[in-house]
Amino acid sequence: MTKVAIVLFAHGARDPAWALPAQRVAEAVRRLRPEAMVSLAFLELMAPGLAEAVDAAAAAGAQVMRIVPLFLAQGGHLKRDVPALIEAARARHPGCRIELLEAVGEDAGVVRAMAAYAAGA
Amino acid sequence: MTKVAIVLFAHGARDPAWALPAQRVAEAVRRLRPEAMVSLAFLELMAPGLAEAVDAAAAAGAQVMRIVPLFLAQGGHLKRDVPALIEAARARHPGCRIELLEAVGEDAGVVRAMAAYAAGA
Repeated sequence: MTKVAIVLFAHGARDPAWALPAQRVAEAVRRLRPEAMVSLAFLELMAPGLAEAVDAAAAAGAQVMRIVPLFLAQGGHLKRDVPALIEAARARHPGCRIELLEAVGEDAGVVRAMAAYAAGA
Repeated sequence: MTKVAIVLFAHGARDPAWALPAQRVAEAVRRLRPEAMVSLAFLELMAPGLAEAVDAAAAAGAQVMRIVPLFLAQGGHLKRDVPALIEAARARHPGCRIELLEAVGEDAGVVRAMAAYAAGA
């Protein structure tokens, strides 16, 4: 069976508590995909970085990686910096298929859930 | 009937396209709460700012305002800068009840939706 890694990629912040929602997402993904390796990575201020998380998943045998940006939208980081990180990761791990998804905020289900919360529904 | 305003508060970015997911959330909230005034506000790089959006909602007759941070988690902005903005807004509009919700990423439904997207479910 193809070994799949799902890397949740968040911005990062100084306060360790900032990562709690991302950790809750990781736990929920593990319940949905118990066969997949699920990990977190951060753009800045928190560890591991994206390169480190990708290398760890490759070392653990991942053949396919889904990089999932936990961002509301595609800002400058996701449009400029992250594609370069992904290209570098692909060059380091040519045997691994590395997919960069759109930001979670682009997903219709996530939009619906944010709207329901905002509406108090 | 109490006039309710829902202000979706996002970070902002240089690229105008960055605001599209927030605009989709606003449209979805308008469908869920057609009686409420729904608007967007930004912390930086985009207009209007939070103070301007709150003042506009108050001028339009809002008696209750729900400020909903479209952020993954409570970072330094939400912990330090935003409470000060909210206190100043409450002082300017003493007849208006201004509620600051937790970041959308703290909501269990939003966590589930992000996890479903990440899992490819």
